[in-house]
Amino acid sequence: MELFPFVVVVGFLALLAAAYMTISVLREDTGTKEMQEIASAIKEGAMAFLNRQYSTIAGLAIIVAVVLGFLTRQYHTGIAFITGAAFSALSGYIGMYVAVSSNLRVAAGARHSLNKALVVAFRGGAVTGLAVTALSVLGVALLFYAFGGLLHPDKAPLEIVGFGFGASFVALFAQLGGGIYTKAADVGADLVGKVEAGIPEDDPRNPAVIADLVGDNVGDCAGRGADLFESTAAENIGAMILGISLVPVFGAKGIIFPLVARAVGILASIVGMFFVRGREEGDPMSALNRGYFVTTILAIAGLYPVTRYMLSGPGVNFLYFYGAAVIGILLSYIFVFLTQYYTSYDYRPVREIARASITGPATNIIAGLAVGFESTALPVIFISMAILGAYWLGVQSGLPGGGLYGTAVATMGMLSTAAYILAMDTYGPITDNAGGIVEMSGAPPEVRRRTDRLDASGNTTKALTKGYAIGSAALATFLLFSAYIDEVKLLLNIKGDFPVDIGKPEVFVGAFIGAMMVFLFSSAAIRAVGRAAQYVILEVRRQFKEIPGLMEGKARPQYGNCVDIVTRGALKEMVLPGMVVVVTPILVGLILKAEAAAAFLMIGTITGVIVALFLNNGGGAWDNAKKFIELGNYGGKGSEAHKAGVVGDTVGDPCKDTAGPSLHVLVKLISTITLVLARLFV
Amino acid sequence: MELFPFVVVVGFLALLAAAYMTISVLREDTGTKEMQEIASAIKEGAMAFLNRQYSTIAGLAIIVAVVLGFLTRQYHTGIAFITGAAFSALSGYIGMYVAVSSNLRVAAGARHSLNKALVVAFRGGAVTGLAVTALSVLGVALLFYAFGGLLHPDKAPLEIVGFGFGASFVALFAQLGGGIYTKAADVGADLVGKVEAGIPEDDPRNPAVIADLVGDNVGDCAGRGADLFESTAAENIGAMILGISLVPVFGAKGIIFPLVARAVGILASIVGMFFVRGREEGDPMSALNRGYFVTTILAIAGLYPVTRYMLSGPGVNFLYFYGAAVIGILLSYIFVFLTQYYTSYDYRPVREIARASITGPATNIIAGLAVGFESTALPVIFISMAILGAYWLGVQSGLPGGGLYGTAVATMGMLSTAAYILAMDTYGPITDNAGGIVEMSGAPPEVRRRTDRLDASGNTTKALTKGYAIGSAALATFLLFSAYIDEVKLLLNIKGDFPVDIGKPEVFVGAFIGAMMVFLFSSAAIRAVGRAAQYVILEVRRQFKEIPGLMEGKARPQYGNCVDIVTRGALKEMVLPGMVVVVTPILVGLILKAEAAAAFLMIGTITGVIVALFLNNGGGAWDNAKKFIELGNYGGKGSEAHKAGVVGDTVGDPCKDTAGPSLHVLVKLISTITLVLARLFV
Repeated sequence: MELFPFVVVVGFLALLAAAYMTISVLREDTGTKEMQEIASAIKEGAMAFLNRQYSTIAGLAIIVAVVLGFLTRQYHTGIAFITGAAFSALSGYIGMYVAVSSNLRVAAGARHSLNKALVVAFRGGAVTGLAVTALSVLGVALLFYAFGGLLHPDKAPLEIVGFGFGASFVALFAQLGGGIYTKAADVGADLVGKVEAGIPEDDPRNPAVIADLVGDNVGDCAGRGADLFESTAAENIGAMILGISLVPVFGAKGIIFPLVARAVGILASIVGMFFVRGREEGDPMSALNRGYFVTTILAIAGLYPVTRYMLSGPGVNFLYFYGAAVIGILLSYIFVFLTQYYTSYDYRPVREIARASITGPATNIIAGLAVGFESTALPVIFISMAILGAYWLGVQSGLPGGGLYGTAVATMGMLSTAAYILAMDTYGPITDNAGGIVEMSGAPPEVRRRTDRLDASGNTTKALTKGYAIGSAALATFLLFSAYIDEVKLLLNIKGDFPVDIGKPEVFVGAFIGAMMVFLFSSAAIRAVGRAAQYVILEVRRQFKEIPGLMEGKARPQYGNCVDIVTRGALKEMVLPGMVVVVTPILVGLILKAEAAAAFLMIGTITGVIVALFLNNGGGAWDNAKKFIELGNYGGKGSEAHKAGVVGDTVGDPCKDTAGPSLHVLVKLISTITLVLARLFV
Repeated sequence: MELFPFVVVVGFLALLAAAYMTISVLREDTGTKEMQEIASAIKEGAMAFLNRQYSTIAGLAIIVAVVLGFLTRQYHTGIAFITGAAFSALSGYIGMYVAVSSNLRVAAGARHSLNKALVVAFRGGAVTGLAVTALSVLGVALLFYAFGGLLHPDKAPLEIVGFGFGASFVALFAQLGGGIYTKAADVGADLVGKVEAGIPEDDPRNPAVIADLVGDNVGDCAGRGADLFESTAAENIGAMILGISLVPVFGAKGIIFPLVARAVGILASIVGMFFVRGREEGDPMSALNRGYFVTTILAIAGLYPVTRYMLSGPGVNFLYFYGAAVIGILLSYIFVFLTQYYTSYDYRPVREIARASITGPATNIIAGLAVGFESTALPVIFISMAILGAYWLGVQSGLPGGGLYGTAVATMGMLSTAAYILAMDTYGPITDNAGGIVEMSGAPPEVRRRTDRLDASGNTTKALTKGYAIGSAALATFLLFSAYIDEVKLLLNIKGDFPVDIGKPEVFVGAFIGAMMVFLFSSAAIRAVGRAAQYVILEVRRQFKEIPGLMEGKARPQYGNCVDIVTRGALKEMVLPGMVVVVTPILVGLILKAEAAAAFLMIGTITGVIVALFLNNGGGAWDNAKKFIELGNYGGKGSEAHKAGVVGDTVGDPCKDTAGPSLHVLVKLISTITLVLARLFV
């Protein structure tokens, strides 16, 4: 317990660091008047979307909180749910505000030097990384304290579960709504602007161009932030629940270990962030990688004393748990590499798609499907090895029932660098926006070249984060699933195994529905993009037709209208698929009961992870196959192969930016729902 | 036991009926010399492929049989495996021989009347239907007798399991090899012939045209035949295993009930087949539907006395089991309808894809993905209801542990019309081939109109059979999965539940790998088509270039070379994905043991069914979206929408004709492998 204050102190320290980063970003030069105009339009649009989105989510959340309170008759769960939702929203708000303030300063900084722009962009991203992880750990700690965790630590974790549910509830809608927004705006802007009117990307004459830039923020920044907020929160809570059964050996230390490990990771990330510094002629990625390397080393070093102090006990060797933590950190590296292998044009899979493009769009799509399907295999094999390895280490530690805790420690290890990773992720949309601002404000070409280089590295970091997010979700599936089983055992007062008899028809049916829901949700998410894009297309066409002098550059398009229309479209389209995910597990649990809910959960999470891998990697591979062709291969830009590549890229967009990332959240949401409502299912 | 001879008699009766149909087909007019030339080229190619394919499979099967004998040390299992493989191959051989003899006679018959052609085509197909179902039931009965089933009926079923494994082994390679063949030839013929050289489909100048026609036979006829041979065999055996535990109540009657139910279905189908008779101006589908209706009514009627006689006992009301059988028959109708809903252009899903084609291939593909994903939901819901309903009826019957047997009876009900369904299926490639022969031989237009109408109905029956096949596979998953659990219980001498603890890491990992294997296999199957098609493309291009006068119609292309090249390509490409499916469950069972194998099986089958639904329905919907545009919608043939529709159709081809149908078999193969090797996993 004596480390509890350490967790709180680190949380506030991280918020202080975030405040410092914010101030240092806001003090930067804000560039020319043209730049400011564009940036303020983006900022206005992004904040307007976030406000409206949060209002919609708040409405839904209140309904859920009331139903939850009514169903469980536990006001703690309701409070925790609202707190989780509110903290997630707050961290999203802070991160987004700073991101849309940074883009302008990055654009302005790019007029001076690459390093200037890079540091501003990374610090802008760091605010998201720090706000998300700090508020996540502080929220859990706060509730743990409020629910009397210091007095009876073995009771509180089960009452905090609502926090994870609230966080995943917000995350689902944030990722889904943001994902729909970004792709609807993108597709709408491209189809009418590039294809029909024949004007280049980011051209100020395109009425949807601001909406497109807003979309980068609300999808990659706010959406992924909420996703990782939820990961860290849900996995902390899941691991804390598993820690309950270790009280006889470790006392409360096993319960608060996840929080302490997280705090160590945050400290490591803060230090790592100050190592990011680029050189004018260097590759921006190597600057980012240096910081990541420092963070990783510090996390590995820092976890040693923590596991040693907290996970030692009579007959228990902490070194095995330390080994499990290292497995988690290694797995994050492996996932980052596997994502690169399947989505970068330096390797076989993307080149296979590019080559297939020579014979047209059909063979491009077929090759992409094959690559996407294939790309699920290695990640599953490595996750399996990590789960088995960490479990084995946990068993070897000598701790009774320590196997499960070994996998929990591995998850903590994997998530220890989350703050840094998230900073790199948000760096992506900031540099992307900066490039747009530079382009639209007519800045000189050397400035554009600098932002182009930053943008390229931002694309890489965005892709890597997606790999990291799905990897941590995959590792967490087993943890959360086990926490559910543990909770059911506690509720039913079962000492031995909880027998999920998978030969019962309702269990089989629960499993069937779990897998099916993943496909149904993906369908709804993909279709929502198409529908929302239709609204944009109609509006852009209308403006091209009705505003005189627009194409000649004499009149300004009504950017606000497009932003407004995508906002309304995305929010409208996110509700139905989102509610399906919330309602289905509840129905399965209430009608088919706890065993069926366990099978639902197991297959839902497994299928969700695999389909997400398929959608993310397939989409990323299509994207880069097009870029590979644009580099001059197979005829280059304008060739038949390139046209086919563009088709593949467009198909991949809703897969990799809407459905895939939303599935990460879905996986964790169904876990937290079943955890919260477990008592109703028994 | 006294009904055992009835089963054998019906089996031989069905073979007699098949012989009668064969003779009546072979006696028909064989048309003009041109027709005969083309038909003999098709026949030669198809039989050559079948011979080579069976040699390859035989080689693999012998290896597996030896390994199997070595692993299990039970020569009965090895004998059963070889018998199952041989019977499946034999039925495929008979069916294929008659099919490629019928196409010519249908073409010739079409010169006289629609009815003549229709009856010949259907009878040609009926031979496959009868041969497959009769040999399947006779094979199981023969082994049951040979392994002493009449003396100790509770031992024999477990020893026959190898028969199902042999059948599914052949089915996997038959469906996979046939599926690769048919699509590689199709894509190759189209890409070079239609797109590059600009000649119409089925044009005799195209060197791949015969290979394309051969492909229709080896994919739809031989492949689907082996698939359903395997379904009926495996599900018979699975239900017989479940019957073992009912010996205290029913004696041996519960064990041989599946065979008797199958025999009744065969009788019903034979009668139904004689009701198929078309009118010159009528729709061929209504003639086929009449026969299907008669078959269904007779099956429903015939199952009443059988359940009454065989499934009555002290305190057991047979009516509940009869109800379960009716649920199975209803489910087959529902699946046929759902397949139509998602793949026919009379309904919303296909029209959605067609409309999305206006904005190009990318939106066509996105809409198709959304439809394919969505199309998994309703089938899963209906399967779930059928499983729960049949189980509930089984419990209500008063039979202790009767719930599982209720689902087994439902499966028997669903498969009772298999012979008729399969006749309709094989009717598809026969009419398709007849159309090709008429076209290539330059027959007069009214003949072509007749075969066109038959061909259209054949496309419908092929699609419906795919729905039926996946529906029965889905229903069977639970049956086979339960049979595995039952066998493990018998082996471990467990009286109560077999506790599959899904909280164990190795169980979770087994499940993860089960789902992943489905995706990996789909990737390999889709990629194999692309690779085999490349061989064809190169050969067709070569012939166009090197044979003087070919394009002017003065020289004949070397059809045989193309046939030969596709054959070698398809056989080469089928081995690796096939062996992955055989080896993975064995490794999971040996390394991670019986509980993990159960989870592997459960998730592998569930994911397999769902991904197959996605691939089949998505592919079918893309196909018909193109056809809907060709009817003159959204600009009709040659419009931008049509070009997009062609892309979607091409993408759908390997999905719906190679990967999807192979997954049906995969689902059952992993069941029979785990059943056979269960004793090694405990």
